[in-house]
This record gives sequence, structure tokens and C-alpha cells, in this order.
Amino acid sequence: MTYERTHIQLMRGYQPGAQPGHVAIKLNTNENPLPPSPRVLKCLADIPGKTLQRYPDPLATEFRASVARHHGLGAEQVIATNGGDELLRLALTTFVEPGRHIGIAVPSYGLYSVLAAIHQAPISGVALTDAWRLPADATDRWTSDGAQLVILTNPHAPSGTLEPIEAIERVAARFRGVVLIDEAYADFISPDIMHDTTKLINKYPNILILRTFSKGYSLAGLRLAYGTADIRLISPMIQKTKDSYNVDAIAQRLGAAALDDTEHASASWQYVRKQRMYMTSRLNQLGFDVLPSEANFILARVPRAAGWHDARDLHAKLEKREIYVRWFDEDRLRNRLRISIGTSAENRTLVSALEQLRGSGQVLQSS
Amino acid sequence: MTYERTHIQLMRGYQPGAQPGHVAIKLNTNENPLPPSPRVLKCLADIPGKTLQRYPDPLATEFRASVARHHGLGAEQVIATNGGDELLRLALTTFVEPGRHIGIAVPSYGLYSVLAAIHQAPISGVALTDAWRLPADATDRWTSDGAQLVILTNPHAPSGTLEPIEAIERVAARFRGVVLIDEAYADFISPDIMHDTTKLINKYPNILILRTFSKGYSLAGLRLAYGTADIRLISPMIQKTKDSYNVDAIAQRLGAAALDDTEHASASWQYVRKQRMYMTSRLNQLGFDVLPSEANFILARVPRAAGWHDARDLHAKLEKREIYVRWFDEDRLRNRLRISIGTSAENRTLVSALEQLRGSGQVLQSS
Repeated sequence: MTYERTHIQLMRGYQPGAQPGHVAIKLNTNENPLPPSPRVLKCLADIPGKTLQRYPDPLATEFRASVARHHGLGAEQVIATNGGDELLRLALTTFVEPGRHIGIAVPSYGLYSVLAAIHQAPISGVALTDAWRLPADATDRWTSDGAQLVILTNPHAPSGTLEPIEAIERVAARFRGVVLIDEAYADFISPDIMHDTTKLINKYPNILILRTFSKGYSLAGLRLAYGTADIRLISPMIQKTKDSYNVDAIAQRLGAAALDDTEHASASWQYVRKQRMYMTSRLNQLGFDVLPSEANFILARVPRAAGWHDARDLHAKLEKREIYVRWFDEDRLRNRLRISIGTSAENRTLVSALEQLRGSGQVLQSS
Repeated sequence: MTYERTHIQLMRGYQPGAQPGHVAIKLNTNENPLPPSPRVLKCLADIPGKTLQRYPDPLATEFRASVARHHGLGAEQVIATNGGDELLRLALTTFVEPGRHIGIAVPSYGLYSVLAAIHQAPISGVALTDAWRLPADATDRWTSDGAQLVILTNPHAPSGTLEPIEAIERVAARFRGVVLIDEAYADFISPDIMHDTTKLINKYPNILILRTFSKGYSLAGLRLAYGTADIRLISPMIQKTKDSYNVDAIAQRLGAAALDDTEHASASWQYVRKQRMYMTSRLNQLGFDVLPSEANFILARVPRAAGWHDARDLHAKLEKREIYVRWFDEDRLRNRLRISIGTSAENRTLVSALEQLRGSGQVLQSS
């Protein structure tokens, strides 16, 4: 006897990247390599017992005001969520009838398909071009499937490529449902590109932008993200579909403290960009084919080498050295590794490990 | 143009109790009147930046092990959630087909109906008896409506009455779906009643028990709760339907620290029981009819008095004095107030305010 709904029985859950102990070099889940702002840690240490004792503000009023100031929006255009996952789920709950499609690019962040399966929303998947970009007819294909929601990661995961503002605008202008832009990695975009989608919010009533503190603000452990959109998208999620106290009191305070010290955060973004250049060039030298990335990770095609059979094997060999990167058992990704940008020391250790492994197949196999 | 699903447009969201500033006497949302354990605050102050920087354990392994030890269960019989709200939602998502009923007692915690409305699950509401107890035919009525899930608050909210173990067992034995017992207030039950439902978990595969740190452990601001049940109920929620990183790293640590100091928490429960007796007897003296409560609140019928028209008016008059209690615009509740048990000083202030208001109608009305 089972009590599970039939489609839940039949589906597979999302598999997060491994969370090994602290000794490992952990470049598998796209965290920021640098710690959060000292002001955030000070704010944490100063949290009074009373803040824990009382329910948090269900509307996260002060935090949303901080976000609104940061982007030049109104607070009513902002929703605070328990990590980006919650905003993704709320978008399905609020805007998609079960049975109606969700449009995504393929490949994409694996969680989108899992959330769609829970919600019984079929996937309308549009394959990215060879250059890992959206094909020109993507919107038409989502529309012809009758999709009610499109979710796009930009910069894209797991490739790191960036669709320019104009491409996003083209989708929003043509698509008749909600267009959720998952900007989890947007903080790491080179500033000279001047990529700022905030201005689209007042222009397109169907754009919903997801931002998170997990990567850019080094606060993955905190679970804090937010959505910005026209009030007609934000309001039903805040007033009706979110859990009543969805964001805890500590996260509300620390999030505001993090936004008070964007200097600290942007220094980490700049650091990641430099290390991203370093890793791209070193991996290229080692024969890996690395896509140009605007995120805090790179997707690298694994070359033939004496020291490993394929990407999966290299992934396992690195893991034996306690270096964790991500391998996906999925079309177009099986011969690649997604590598989060770590600290300079972590990145160098990975590069030396690759150098050692590359030419040392037999030595390793006998060990 | 709206993007909301039709039934979301038509529904009303949950209205949490007011969260006024810190000056007020706040007896409207059932928080613990005493602060959390000093060990919890020490644990908070000691959280290292690295804990925030990394994703939390998606399985909350150590926290669940603590809960399991606490109840004498296996860790696989425990799920950690972002407050009790999340467990309630997960139970619907995992076990209830939209269109199928959810069984509840009437009246009940208002959030149940809101979650049901979001999920498009009609409510099978069974009115409590005059003594605020489940009628003998409750299970038959839920069954004849085809309910797949029954949610019972025990001790009941907002009355505070307790259904004994045998009554819970009768429901679990007869009902063919999942029986969720929301034990948000169970920590405040008098210990001499020996009310312990944990033993039912290994006996009934359909019982799911919700416990929270919000009330008993003075951690409402943290958003931490858990469910205990047979592994066949817990596993699909952990593996499939919960958000991937649903409980943040701070909550996981603080929850374990709180369970390491149950002495502190049980002292607060004992304090609440004493104050509950005090408030029950003082309100009775003032002509209020107070139901016997095993929770950290009481439901009091408001007597006729010169100083107020009715319960709603008394609620408003107390609010003018910055004393917040809860009034529900709902059958059987309109002539009552739900009053959380506060500190001794808060409770006395409320009692004096009632004494002053009772005989001072004209003075107040002219003010």
C-alpha cells in the first residue's frame, strides 16, 4: 500500500551535487569561493534572541525595501523567497495549470524538469544551438506547445553563455505567458557588457527575474533569493501562494546587510572573473574546449588523454583526489565537466591534478 | 491581462496575525513568551562564514539524527522542513490529487483551507462537538467525501482542547488516507497526561506527525519544523517533493542545539502551564468562559460588559492599548478571543486592562 500520488511515485527527484566534508576542493555546486561580507557576519553575531523568538515579518518588508532601492524598483515589485528554488516553484503554482507546458532550453538546470514533473506540467524543451544559444524560433515552439511559463537561465547553466538583453526582450515580447529569467549567476557577468534586465520589468508585464544571494553574496547556506516583476506577477505570489512565513528572520536581516556592502560582494565577482580567465586559458592549454562563460563556472569538453577514458572517468579520478567537479549524464554534457571557479589555490590544485592525470594513466591505474 | 491561474485569482490568501513593533504586548500569534536556550544563541554567534558560504546539507542529516534520537526513531523516519507550513504543503503535494478532498475539523487553523484552495482540493469539514471534540462519525464523513488526507491540530487550535491518543488512533485505523497530526502545541501538554504519539508511528503507516521549533523552542523566527512518520511517507517528500535545499544551514545547527538543551525548553513549557492556569482562573473571575487548554493559548468567550460591545470591539480596544490578541471572523469564534500565554508581566497587564475596560465603557467612549 502506498499513499503517494501516482505521478510522484513514477518521477525521479532532483539530485543535488555531492556535499563532501570540509577537506575537499569543492568545485561542483557553484558557490562563491570567497566568504560573505564581514558586515553580514557581524549582523549574524548581533542577532538578538527576541528575533528568533518572534515570527518573522511575513512580508519581509525591510528586506524587500533594500532590494527595491538596490534596483531602483518599488518594494511591491519584489518578492523574497527561501532560495531561488522557492520562486521557481511559486511561478509554477501561480501561473501554470497542470497539464500545460513549461518552456525551457535544453540542456538546462535539472531542477526545472523536476519541478515540472511534480506539477504535472510537460516540458517543451528547445535545444540550444551548437553555440549554446537560443534558436530564433524558440518562442514559436514554446507557443505552439501551449506553454504558460518559460524558464531561462541567463547566464546559462551549465554552459555559462549569456543571451544578450535583446534576445530576452524578443522572448518577452512574443511569448504570451510568463517569462522567468533565472539570473542566479548574473553577478558574475563582466560589467563592460552592461547587462541589466531590471529596466525590462517596467516594460514587459510578463517578465519575472530571479536573483539569489547564494552565489554573488556567498550566502548559499542561508537560502535567500528574490524575484522582481510587475506587481501583477508579484502580488499573487506574496498574497496567496507562498508559505505564510517563507523567509526566516535571520535571512531577512543578513540579506539587507549584504546589500549594504555590495563593495565586498563585487570584489568577489571581480576575483571570480579573473580566476575564470585564468582557468579558461589554462584548461585550453591542456586541450580542454572551454565555452566563454559569464558565470562563476565553466563548462569544459574533456580531451582524449592517456590518463583518463572520458569525462566521467576524469570526474571519478578527480574525486579520488578529493577534488569535486560536476559531471552530468545527459546529452551534450557527457563529454564535459562543469567546474565552479574556486579560490586561486583551489584552481591551481585542480590544474596540477589535471596535468598529473593527463599523462599518468598507467601509474594511477596501478595505484 | 492576468497571468494568474483562475482558481488562484479567485482565492483569498492566509492572513497571519499582526506583527506590530516591539513596544506592544503581543499575545496574538502563539509564540513562546520566554527566549530560546542560551546554547542556541551561543551556537548562532559561533556560526562560521564558511557555513553561510556553502549550500546546506540538502538532507539535513545531523539535524534529523538529533530529532530521531530525541524521539527514539530512525533518521529515515524524519523530514526537516522550513517551518510547519512547508510540511503541510508537502503532504498535499505528495499525497492528494487535486480535486480530492482534505478532511479537517471545523473550526481549524485557517492555513489548512488556504493550502487546500491553492491545491484545488475541496475541504471536507467536520464540525467539532459543543465540547470542541471530534464527533464519533468524523472518519466516516471524511471517507464518504473521498478525502485522501486528514489534518488534525492536536492540541486543537484555536480551542486548546486535546484529543486523547485513543481518538487519534481510531482515526488512523479507520481512515484509508494519510492522517497528519499537527502537534505544533504538543510541548505544552501537561506531562501527567502522558500524551505521546510517537509510538503510533511504528504502528500506523499512515500517521504523519508535525512538530515545530516555533513555539516549544522559542524559535518562530528561525522557521524550523519536522515531520515523523513511516519511511514510506517520509521518503517521497525528502527525495522528490521538497525544495532541494529547503532548510538553511543555520536552522539545521540551531535546531540540533535546541534539542541538546531540552531542559531549557521544558522549563518554558512549565512556565507557560502555570501562567495558563493563572490566566484561566483570572479570566473566569472576570466572567470569561475559558476552555480547558493544553496549548500555549486559551480561547475565551467574551462576556457582556459595559465597557465593550462584543469580542471584536474588545479586541479593538485592547489594540488601542497596544495589547494584541486574536479575533477570528468565523462561526463559533466571533464571540471569543484567542489569547497567547505571555510572560507573567504581560498576562497581568492584560488582566488589568480587562478589569479597567470592563466597567469603564463611558469613560473610554468619550476619550
